[in-house]
Amino acid sequence: MADRTIAVIGGTGDQGFGLVLRWAKAGEHVIIGSRQQQKAEDAAKKANNILGASTVSGMENPKAAAAADIIVMSVPFAAHVDMIKSVHDSITPDDVFIDVVVPLSTAVGGSASTALAVWEGSAAQQAARLLPPHTKIASAFHNVVAEALQRIDREVDSDVIVCGDSQETRKIGMELAEKIPGVKAVDGGRLENSKIVEQITALLIGINIRYKVSDAGIRITGLPQNP
Amino acid sequence: MADRTIAVIGGTGDQGFGLVLRWAKAGEHVIIGSRQQQKAEDAAKKANNILGASTVSGMENPKAAAAADIIVMSVPFAAHVDMIKSVHDSITPDDVFIDVVVPLSTAVGGSASTALAVWEGSAAQQAARLLPPHTKIASAFHNVVAEALQRIDREVDSDVIVCGDSQETRKIGMELAEKIPGVKAVDGGRLENSKIVEQITALLIGINIRYKVSDAGIRITGLPQNP
Repeated sequence: MADRTIAVIGGTGDQGFGLVLRWAKAGEHVIIGSRQQQKAEDAAKKANNILGASTVSGMENPKAAAAADIIVMSVPFAAHVDMIKSVHDSITPDDVFIDVVVPLSTAVGGSASTALAVWEGSAAQQAARLLPPHTKIASAFHNVVAEALQRIDREVDSDVIVCGDSQETRKIGMELAEKIPGVKAVDGGRLENSKIVEQITALLIGINIRYKVSDAGIRITGLPQNP
Repeated sequence: MADRTIAVIGGTGDQGFGLVLRWAKAGEHVIIGSRQQQKAEDAAKKANNILGASTVSGMENPKAAAAADIIVMSVPFAAHVDMIKSVHDSITPDDVFIDVVVPLSTAVGGSASTALAVWEGSAAQQAARLLPPHTKIASAFHNVVAEALQRIDREVDSDVIVCGDSQETRKIGMELAEKIPGVKAVDGGRLENSKIVEQITALLIGINIRYKVSDAGIRITGLPQNP
């Protein structure tokens, strides 16, 4: 556990950078992946400065994925397919791939409070189709906003629903979620359920707009305290 | 307000009956609608017995809808179109129609933890297509389970997300939601967003199964206390 490495593809973006900060703060080794080495290194330096640490490094996406045990995909939907292709050959059967992507209509110039229908059912299933068949895939972190993740001195008031066809893989996603103070991980079942979880993000963005807030989140009630 | 009447079409069913109990307990005049007059009257008697009241009555669906100012549609998806047709001519431009229907795959013999894609986008939009064009439509109450509604001595630990194209109509749905102790109403925006809210029900049913609980619900976090 202590020796594992997490690569966040798109870790220079708002959501990805927030995840980087949270995991690095929790003691994980984190690599920020970017299309450009320099951008990745700059973001890693920024993260280390914020945390007063030196555990975050920066690499080009394929190298970041190759160096990591857990690959987290946090990019805009418009870049999803390209980014998956760029890390495809770096994914080994022992790796875990966690998709954070939401198919917001912004990908085609539309509104962030609406979502596109993805041919495969969800962004996560699109990833599953494109990645090597042996890839262990989960999807998670769709409903926690970048702003809340980046305020590292405060707890995140939202659950993280984790989907994936293998319970073992979901458990790794859930464990990563609970590294973020305030977050409770919820077992969301099969990867196909990611469709609903992804679309909840569009609903939350609409709620943010109507209520003039910036970090609406979601909690699942009625669960045992210690599942 | 004091003189308004709520008809719950499908009020003999578990979810509808729960709503009947909650609203009657809050002092509303409620009519239980059913296909059969006798079943409606029996359910009304049962509700009055539980509440120690006499404010619940029972009627055939078209009569119930005609006698009411607010018509709540709480039926299985398989019966949705037929039931809408049966009350179609009873809906006046002053009425409010609230759709509670979730297109669970059980309608075609499938699982309750998966949902059907509805041609119009959602069950609520299917209702909008079939009802008179003047109908004021909202959708709500998809994510509160029958069990929680029927335990009238306990608060319901779930929010109710209300969708509808008119803010005025949404407000009526939200006001009705907050008649249920514990419930906070959330403005879900346009009726098309009902697609997401309806599908959350399938997700919650799957969560109930995985966690061996019966009343998983949803809360939206990050909102102002008094919106």
